[in-house]
Amino acid sequence: MMNQKQMPNWLSQRAFLTPNRQAFISRDETVTFEELNLQALSLARKLQSAGAKRLDHIAFLCENSLDLVCLYHAVSYIGAVSVPLNTRLTVEEQVWQIEDSKAVLLICDRAHEEQGIRIHGLKQQTTMITINDLKALTENDLPLLDHVDLEEPHTIIYTSGTTGHPKGVILTNGNHWWNAVGSALNLGLQQGDKWLSCVPLFHVSGLSILMKNVIYGMTVVLHSTFDPEAATQAIKDEGVTMVSVVSAMLSRLLETLGEDAYPDTFRCMLLGGGPAPKVMLEVCKDKGIPIYQTYGLSETASQIVTLAPEYMIEKLGSAGKPLFPAEIKIMKDSIEAQPNKEGEIVVKGPNVTSGYLNRPEATEKVYQDGWFYTGDVGYLDDDGFLYVLDRRKDLIISGGENVYPAEIEAVLLQHHFIEEAGVIGVSHAQWGQVPAAFVTIKEGQELSPNEVFSFCKERLAGYKIPKYVYFVDELPRNASKKLLRRDLYKLLAK
Amino acid sequence: MMNQKQMPNWLSQRAFLTPNRQAFISRDETVTFEELNLQALSLARKLQSAGAKRLDHIAFLCENSLDLVCLYHAVSYIGAVSVPLNTRLTVEEQVWQIEDSKAVLLICDRAHEEQGIRIHGLKQQTTMITINDLKALTENDLPLLDHVDLEEPHTIIYTSGTTGHPKGVILTNGNHWWNAVGSALNLGLQQGDKWLSCVPLFHVSGLSILMKNVIYGMTVVLHSTFDPEAATQAIKDEGVTMVSVVSAMLSRLLETLGEDAYPDTFRCMLLGGGPAPKVMLEVCKDKGIPIYQTYGLSETASQIVTLAPEYMIEKLGSAGKPLFPAEIKIMKDSIEAQPNKEGEIVVKGPNVTSGYLNRPEATEKVYQDGWFYTGDVGYLDDDGFLYVLDRRKDLIISGGENVYPAEIEAVLLQHHFIEEAGVIGVSHAQWGQVPAAFVTIKEGQELSPNEVFSFCKERLAGYKIPKYVYFVDELPRNASKKLLRRDLYKLLAK
Repeated sequence: MMNQKQMPNWLSQRAFLTPNRQAFISRDETVTFEELNLQALSLARKLQSAGAKRLDHIAFLCENSLDLVCLYHAVSYIGAVSVPLNTRLTVEEQVWQIEDSKAVLLICDRAHEEQGIRIHGLKQQTTMITINDLKALTENDLPLLDHVDLEEPHTIIYTSGTTGHPKGVILTNGNHWWNAVGSALNLGLQQGDKWLSCVPLFHVSGLSILMKNVIYGMTVVLHSTFDPEAATQAIKDEGVTMVSVVSAMLSRLLETLGEDAYPDTFRCMLLGGGPAPKVMLEVCKDKGIPIYQTYGLSETASQIVTLAPEYMIEKLGSAGKPLFPAEIKIMKDSIEAQPNKEGEIVVKGPNVTSGYLNRPEATEKVYQDGWFYTGDVGYLDDDGFLYVLDRRKDLIISGGENVYPAEIEAVLLQHHFIEEAGVIGVSHAQWGQVPAAFVTIKEGQELSPNEVFSFCKERLAGYKIPKYVYFVDELPRNASKKLLRRDLYKLLAK
Repeated sequence: MMNQKQMPNWLSQRAFLTPNRQAFISRDETVTFEELNLQALSLARKLQSAGAKRLDHIAFLCENSLDLVCLYHAVSYIGAVSVPLNTRLTVEEQVWQIEDSKAVLLICDRAHEEQGIRIHGLKQQTTMITINDLKALTENDLPLLDHVDLEEPHTIIYTSGTTGHPKGVILTNGNHWWNAVGSALNLGLQQGDKWLSCVPLFHVSGLSILMKNVIYGMTVVLHSTFDPEAATQAIKDEGVTMVSVVSAMLSRLLETLGEDAYPDTFRCMLLGGGPAPKVMLEVCKDKGIPIYQTYGLSETASQIVTLAPEYMIEKLGSAGKPLFPAEIKIMKDSIEAQPNKEGEIVVKGPNVTSGYLNRPEATEKVYQDGWFYTGDVGYLDDDGFLYVLDRRKDLIISGGENVYPAEIEAVLLQHHFIEEAGVIGVSHAQWGQVPAAFVTIKEGQELSPNEVFSFCKERLAGYKIPKYVYFVDELPRNASKKLLRRDLYKLLAK
């Protein structure tokens, strides 16, 4: 009799339940859930005036702001689907995503207006409007949706594939819901929690914070970009209890923190975006920073595996166990791998996408018996803890041996003069592929390739030692500060 | 592609995720989740040896114990359905429920063995076995279910209707899941939480604690019965942070506490089981006891409405707002009532039962457009907070005016000499019905009917003043200490 797929609209329910709680704190303003809801409702009515309809795909090109938060909710209120664009992409890449998603509307903030105009020039069927122009429209009085359907799409997020075109991951309301609930069952939920969002809201890591915001009724401190000084201040002086980071961000936070410490109320540094160097985790452990390693993908609506608090130290380096409603296994040659044997990481759960937009073949390829094949490589230890070795697409196969870039990078980072490291496989006549390393050097230090080779020789099997070392000024990273190994190939070409 | 209705078996997943956390602390033993799981798995295999199969209905006649906890989980592992019997019922009433539910097996603990034999004498088709005999069986090696289906039934709980036979409420895995999740989103979830269960596990209030235990990974302190001294000690000295009570229990806890106070770590006194006297809530407020008033039914898998922490004082006496995934409204003459207008409380949500066992007509009667009609009376204030006036079935209609027993009881309890009070409607030639009051007097005090009448006269409209006052030694209450107004009629007959 009861429909378990329908639920009151999350923002409207939250504004009803706890209207006066602080929803967002940004540099310029603080809004309660009631205020956020009124702004989102107004924007939804203006979106309708702009012609947006139920199930339309609506693209955003915005940096982190309250306007972007309201846009997401406004799109939900009209039952349309958000297509957040990565602001760092080239115009051509953005046009490609707009075409692929058949977005009818592109909404830009002031900073991306010019970019929006260039996109519109190339793709005139898609209406382009700035947020300010949208806000200036009169409100339409068509009815809004007061409920969400867990099986309907909420977002289409493009994955940054290494080869070929990116794919649009369809995330339903239910995928986001179950991710938020699974995370709460793991991390707990305290009345004073305050989550710092300094990751982009166009990525699933940032978007998942917006979902938690309304579902938990939790205050979010919103930074427009990642500024290690500002983030450190938010944790130390502004009551932030939780923050999502990737290891490149964590490294800069540690640098900024220096000899200082975070307050005891800071309870969770949620670390995603690929394997973290063990040496960094050890620094955190020594400083008492509560690191929660995670593993997740756009396809899993952010993390699906997280290390529970009681194992933070004992299982250092592990991404942990699945969230309560989810499952993982390791597959090797179509057979479930034994503990400690590496293979492909395969996941299952109500937070996992039902597939890629308009890509039935790609979708079919990643599913088998209801399990999603991630393409990433890892193993489970005897207790069922996941260790992520690498993203399969970055796997280097040298003379028949598997070589994981992350392992070599972790070794390079142990060198006191090396700031950052990225490793890729390059073609080699004899071995098929060999590792090549790109490193940045700490200010005021000097290092020769031979010193790097001999440092590695002491720590790595012969076939894992980089055959080439390149010294560069900076490594290519995406907006989430994740290392883009594919872009290292471009450096190679120079 | 992904099935959102399937989830790993909760106990097995919990034992996998946090094997070493304390699951239960009872007087005799403490078990971790891993130990609990092993015991439940063993019991499941023995249940199969006893002939129990998937979808079978299996009745329990047990007091609170770890054995009963394991029984619930063992039944889930074989995909059967638990039918917990209220141990306070007469043998005839228990036989009726076993017949109605077509239970194939009745499992008794040692304390109820004799009762079980008498039931079996009257109902020989149902196999009767004691827990000890069950445990002595050898394990069957048929496969167990490693997943739960949210749409399949978990429990059948009989409601204590005032008239006619009780109805078996079907609660699915999903109903329990959503109740636990909705409650966590409201009350929060902290690593050190420890829930005291001193309400019967055969009622939904106790059963819902078992669900939270595995879903949250939260330690439960299990008392076999409600002993105010032991409960007070558990809160004061044994780290209990949360407890479920009804107002009669709370009253005795306050008595035991005396001038003392609970520690600051005690964060939630979850108060259900009908409207609480305001005077008692005020005492709690003065003593800084964190009372969370709730409203719920067997049909909603325990509470569906709870007062959020920030409104505890401002909205004293309210049961609060719905849990995040749920909704409420007030209906009067088939129209949604305005704020502050009383009517029937109508609820909706994924925690609400899909109906009564083998009672299509009764089920149809309580549903309309996906909303469940509770039969209870209340109103929503201007801010949407629910005030429960009374259970409709107890409503007294006197000279065309609605009279709510709870209101009169609350007034009677304000009298310093009155310990407990219960009010019912009795037939009256002129007015149709008039209120009759049953009261118990505090030790060493004396009171005459006239003193009670004049006390009420100062506080109540004329038609609300009890026409009869009866002094009794104790009031009839069920196993959850809820006042049984229907049993007051029996006192009247004496």
